[in-house]
Amino acid sequence: MTLIPPATIGMPLAEVDTPCLLLEMDAFERNVQRLAESLAGSRVKVRPHAKSHKCPQIAMRQLAAGAVGVCCQKVSEAESLVAGGVRDVLVANEVVGRMKLQRLAALSRQAKVAVCADDADNVRDIDAAARDAGVVIDVLVEVNVGANRCGVEPGEPALRIAQAITACRNLRFAGIQAYQGAAQHLRGVEERRAAIASAAEKARTTKALLQKHGIACEKITGAGTGTYLFEAASAVYDELQPGSYIFMDVDYARNDWTESGIPRFEHSLFVWTTVMSRPASDRVVVDAGLKASSVDSGMPRVADVPDAEYLKASDEHGVIQLKGATLALGDKLKLIPGHCDPTVNLYDYFVCIRNGRVEALWPITARGALL
Amino acid sequence: MTLIPPATIGMPLAEVDTPCLLLEMDAFERNVQRLAESLAGSRVKVRPHAKSHKCPQIAMRQLAAGAVGVCCQKVSEAESLVAGGVRDVLVANEVVGRMKLQRLAALSRQAKVAVCADDADNVRDIDAAARDAGVVIDVLVEVNVGANRCGVEPGEPALRIAQAITACRNLRFAGIQAYQGAAQHLRGVEERRAAIASAAEKARTTKALLQKHGIACEKITGAGTGTYLFEAASAVYDELQPGSYIFMDVDYARNDWTESGIPRFEHSLFVWTTVMSRPASDRVVVDAGLKASSVDSGMPRVADVPDAEYLKASDEHGVIQLKGATLALGDKLKLIPGHCDPTVNLYDYFVCIRNGRVEALWPITARGALL
Repeated sequence: MTLIPPATIGMPLAEVDTPCLLLEMDAFERNVQRLAESLAGSRVKVRPHAKSHKCPQIAMRQLAAGAVGVCCQKVSEAESLVAGGVRDVLVANEVVGRMKLQRLAALSRQAKVAVCADDADNVRDIDAAARDAGVVIDVLVEVNVGANRCGVEPGEPALRIAQAITACRNLRFAGIQAYQGAAQHLRGVEERRAAIASAAEKARTTKALLQKHGIACEKITGAGTGTYLFEAASAVYDELQPGSYIFMDVDYARNDWTESGIPRFEHSLFVWTTVMSRPASDRVVVDAGLKASSVDSGMPRVADVPDAEYLKASDEHGVIQLKGATLALGDKLKLIPGHCDPTVNLYDYFVCIRNGRVEALWPITARGALL
Repeated sequence: MTLIPPATIGMPLAEVDTPCLLLEMDAFERNVQRLAESLAGSRVKVRPHAKSHKCPQIAMRQLAAGAVGVCCQKVSEAESLVAGGVRDVLVANEVVGRMKLQRLAALSRQAKVAVCADDADNVRDIDAAARDAGVVIDVLVEVNVGANRCGVEPGEPALRIAQAITACRNLRFAGIQAYQGAAQHLRGVEERRAAIASAAEKARTTKALLQKHGIACEKITGAGTGTYLFEAASAVYDELQPGSYIFMDVDYARNDWTESGIPRFEHSLFVWTTVMSRPASDRVVVDAGLKASSVDSGMPRVADVPDAEYLKASDEHGVIQLKGATLALGDKLKLIPGHCDPTVNLYDYFVCIRNGRVEALWPITARGALL
């Protein structure tokens, strides 16, 4: 089941086979640096979301830049990250099911592992798995702070879950997960700022209620690339979970960033593709379609060629309209993915590029880690 | 980089971990049988498209049911299928680039391999690769019969490519690729029938022009699940390339099939998912999102639970609205994917189910085969 990689170390970019996933190392490193600089002097900690990259090499670089650990969404992602050297992982999500909880408990023997919960029965299931494995697991209550996905409502419902956690002998209550995912792609800065102000208030009042009931809340964690400086400035959040900042994508680029204070992260992630057909003078077809770039948040954008628009994707083809640009059969192009996370999940390697050459191939070891 | 599979042989379905990809074997086998029966007595041959399944075990069952070979879209898919035992593969697509052509030529030492072309320079590149490898490669000219993606225009432009192929010593002209992809999801039967009548006429006149110029056209190949009986009835097509019929999906289910003559293929492919959160009385969240079911052609549909609608997907979550249905935390559901091909490409295994138990795990060896 092992596929031949699209490149070898030292190969010039022009020779790298397509479609593949390029990571422009200088831009990537600047993004990592910019995030750290933007939080210099702040008391909040960074725990980047590894669901975006699924790659231990990237996680280790985020940790080297000051992150306290990483987040992920799946137990199998956590396993992959721990196998790659990460020692502190928050599964920023609910984990439901006996097999997954067994795996989570087993993993907590190898690394510091935490998980979220929004249901009292599930809390007791996590406890049972922890007891069977002879471990203690950190559990955070996930509170719905406006995204209306998972999570209990703020206040009393959250208190009841926190009490369920503290009642379990093999669990330790570790705080509040308060991620406002729906805010990340609100286009206007003030819309995003207002959504986070509301989320922070819900988290703050919930923490106060817990404290009133004798439950110390050691941290409130959340935030994404679109808003993290607002959470940082809230005096409520203790930990930030941005993921996409290392790559950026077309969807995030549509946000207004002016006067947000958030650095202009650069596009560092690209789908490398070849012109494989020239059916008309104003249209070419490239070899990167739905299986090479996720279109859930819109089409990819052609980088570096201003007069070319990626119009539509089918399974293995992308149709590019030329509005003045000239492209020849065999020409290779960079596409900026519409949405970085599900695009990364289509690939086995980051082809790491510096100064126009392949510096490394980083395996995306949690690619397909769905369990 | 090997992930733990979601099931073991013999396991009851209820225990299979989620999200994973289920193949209901009885329905799958009936689909394979129905396609063969629907063409009984016809002179046309079947060459199913393996881009849908990317799995040698499925290809071998299609061959056992009478297929003359399979199609795929990528050289790396062809390698994977040949490694799995397939002896006759048509890359029903253009292959551009030195490395890919080297691999194609090398593969043609192990199996009968054919490829499409729509550009004379590319034809000469294929010839050079074949010469370097000491092989002769079958090349078909791809003609644009209405899909407006790849392919040269019918008539004179197609003739010129065919002449370029016949002029090459290490290539053999093998016919016309005439796939009308845009017709497959036209909803009305008569719309689809008319699109294929037009495509067939373009292929027929092109074949006649080639013959007038002394170029024998041994086959015209094309067709998909939405239309294949129309191509079969055209007296023009010699070979059919349906792919999705083995699985079906939500998008194909939207087609009108009444009086098309095409059998009602059953849904055999499902995403198995768990209710991981119950945030409201009318809403649950399942653990299958964008990374578990491609949404390019719309949301997945909840199978077997009539009063539940999959409303929206984020990376690892799906929100299901309950319209009377009751679902508990931990309940497992089958989702019918919106679009089967890119969904299959997200998984490493088909979990093959018969009578509610795991009969086999079939590796999707060409998953991620993008080159």
